Amino acid sequence: MAEQLAPLEVIERTRRGEPVDGPSAEAFARSWIDGTTSDALMASWCMAACLIGIEHEQVEALTRALIASGDRLELGSLGPVGDIQSTGGVGDTAPLVALPLAAALGVRVATMSGRGLGHSGGLIDKLESIPGFDADLELARFVRQVRDVGIAVVSQSGRLTPAGRHLEELRDATGTTPAAGLVAASVMSRAIAGGAGAISLEVTFGHGAHIADADAARGTAGLMAALAAPWGRRVRWIVSDMDSPRGRFVGNALEVAGAGEVLRGGGPEDVRELAVRLAGDLAESAGVAGPGEGRREAAAALGGGLALASAERWVEAQGGDPAVWTDPGALPTAPVRIDVPAPRDGWVAAIPARGIGEVARWLGAGRLHSDQSIDPVAGVEIVAGVGSRVAEGDPVAVVHGRDEWAGERAREMAEAWITVSEDEVARPPLVAGEGGGDAGAA
Amino acid sequence: MAEQLAPLEVIERTRRGEPVDGPSAEAFARSWIDGTTSDALMASWCMAACLIGIEHEQVEALTRALIASGDRLELGSLGPVGDIQSTGGVGDTAPLVALPLAAALGVRVATMSGRGLGHSGGLIDKLESIPGFDADLELARFVRQVRDVGIAVVSQSGRLTPAGRHLEELRDATGTTPAAGLVAASVMSRAIAGGAGAISLEVTFGHGAHIADADAARGTAGLMAALAAPWGRRVRWIVSDMDSPRGRFVGNALEVAGAGEVLRGGGPEDVRELAVRLAGDLAESAGVAGPGEGRREAAAALGGGLALASAERWVEAQGGDPAVWTDPGALPTAPVRIDVPAPRDGWVAAIPARGIGEVARWLGAGRLHSDQSIDPVAGVEIVAGVGSRVAEGDPVAVVHGRDEWAGERAREMAEAWITVSEDEVARPPLVAGEGGGDAGAA
Repeated sequence: MAEQLAPLEVIERTRRGEPVDGPSAEAFARSWIDGTTSDALMASWCMAACLIGIEHEQVEALTRALIASGDRLELGSLGPVGDIQSTGGVGDTAPLVALPLAAALGVRVATMSGRGLGHSGGLIDKLESIPGFDADLELARFVRQVRDVGIAVVSQSGRLTPAGRHLEELRDATGTTPAAGLVAASVMSRAIAGGAGAISLEVTFGHGAHIADADAARGTAGLMAALAAPWGRRVRWIVSDMDSPRGRFVGNALEVAGAGEVLRGGGPEDVRELAVRLAGDLAESAGVAGPGEGRREAAAALGGGLALASAERWVEAQGGDPAVWTDPGALPTAPVRIDVPAPRDGWVAAIPARGIGEVARWLGAGRLHSDQSIDPVAGVEIVAGVGSRVAEGDPVAVVHGRDEWAGERAREMAEAWITVSEDEVARPPLVAGEGGGDAGAA
Repeated sequence: MAEQLAPLEVIERTRRGEPVDGPSAEAFARSWIDGTTSDALMASWCMAACLIGIEHEQVEALTRALIASGDRLELGSLGPVGDIQSTGGVGDTAPLVALPLAAALGVRVATMSGRGLGHSGGLIDKLESIPGFDADLELARFVRQVRDVGIAVVSQSGRLTPAGRHLEELRDATGTTPAAGLVAASVMSRAIAGGAGAISLEVTFGHGAHIADADAARGTAGLMAALAAPWGRRVRWIVSDMDSPRGRFVGNALEVAGAGEVLRGGGPEDVRELAVRLAGDLAESAGVAGPGEGRREAAAALGGGLALASAERWVEAQGGDPAVWTDPGALPTAPVRIDVPAPRDGWVAAIPARGIGEVARWLGAGRLHSDQSIDPVAGVEIVAGVGSRVAEGDPVAVVHGRDEWAGERAREMAEAWITVSEDEVARPPLVAGEGGGDAGAA
């Protein structure tokens, strides 16, 4: 049977784990984009993609269809243009640091990003917690800012991959975010349409990510690089552990504050290391740093204040208060903070990222309905990360909320997730693989 | 956390295989029924129910919500009223025979049924292949016909469980039919709202059913009986193998013709046996046959022509041509019939029911889009069932279609599904369990 499968057949085959050819998958995606196929069919397929998975051919087809739903930028004429994308997670602060850090190294940073999905926060939600920050740039202004300021971040909307945004909204609303293939198509269609020639990817796995384990994350990262190659994009990727929240903060304004710590040369080691890797690799693939020099230059730029200056220029260019990176008082803060105490003496054994992400979402840092607004100040602060020695009653985390009632409920939820062991616990390695390079060079 | 879960949380918990409390599940279903929760969320949940399953508490909650979406009949004042329902399959002809057979035994038969789901046919689709037959009875006329004619079958629509019909349409459109819990809620809400005090169930399992294996089918059957008990319905159930199509025909008019053969005392043994069991059990639980007497009386009524007379009265009362049961010329027939030959000498080893159901659906016997109309004459005739001895080139099946092109494609598809073995093959047992009784007696 050579003819194309009907949408219902695509769904049924996916549900049964049977292969679907690329043209049928692309026709299915396009029929949803043009409104012939309903959201209900797409949501059903997305849930099957979460639980059964979809093959590379389907991911490629979906990526092509999402790119074709809007315009596609090619920013090569602006010089060495780069983009940093993450598959998302909880406390995923590294891109907030890596973007201005790459700009400080001479990469022209052009990033299109989304709002939060499921229990994980979105880069745009975080930036919008900065007073005055405008992420809804017109396309022409976005390009001008990349050229003139050297860094711009725009919310995914309007003319670039509009269907990608609709698909993310649908997945967010229907509980179908954690599908590696859908994550890959979503992120890569955005990155490819965004026009940067060099792309650094952070592909997360574990309890707080949309991808279950390191093997699956490495496979997805390789697939994402392969998706970009035909479009002449050079991709470097890092696979990172997201079993525990990254850094010290989960929540929108909290993560901006956390990124500020790192930009000032302090902050948690994991965020700093990832930011240096992502920005350093991007500098190499964009051609502004020599092979093997990127990470060293990035570490120097972070320590020397160049990244902070770049971050201030960036926020100012988009209407925000540049003081947010240095002055904690420039960001909104929560009226209520409640400690989550250690239940016993010992070592912090688990702070499950999805659980903490759900506590933060419940407090208002994320959405339970697609039309819900976000509370920028809500979130969870990790005081004692996995592997820390604690005494009974010491705070392991602090809940940040609007009022006592919500804060107390959130504390109870957080207590149920966090475990403290009598035995010493080591924190697992942060990075579980990296790759890419010039395979897809233009 | 005692408060109810949001719809998105219900979906996420189901996706992860975590329990969902009954009140939250019922609130989720009701919010979809009242339009607050979108079809996309419901479709996503249904796909998770297919792939992960839902617990008894959720099935009960959904059943309650579906019943509450419309009116609920109580027909006890009409005498011994009974209903026969099947969870569906391919060539599922037994209810077509069992319904008038039960009426011949003195049960007042009141059945509400649906159209086809996925690759399996629906009772209403089959009846609507009878020229003139009207399944869209007003509720008052339905009740009057049960009282005056002793048997009526009405399409699920209008005032009884309207949400049940919408949910079946949504599942049909979104490829989410094969979920045991959803099948149980759908069938039992319909049976309970339909007003009969006694219910016979055929719960099918295997390749052509919505339930995978005999164990799951027995569990689902027990659950379905338990769902009915609080409403004072007496349930008897049979679990039957649907790995191969039932009887000799798959398709709407074809199955009516096949039922006619059985009503005339002939036809395939499997359909006759199931019809006798379903009708005989119903006669007992409705109190018109003594304990242990139902099946014997049913076999006698089938052999003696009483069931045929009852079937003729029934079809005539609903505007159809009563000659369909005895005169093959009274039913529409396909212009093209193409043999599906045995590929070698041997024994027919597999005629996978889902595969044959898909061939029939592709020919037009079922739907690929929810607004598609059905071709009543399309289908597949099984000439040599599993276990039959065949010589190479002998017809195993015959494809019935509208034109040569479609017929040839369907033949190719059917050939790919059917296997003939060099070794002798025995047909598996038809019935893999039965149960029920007076546990839920009023």
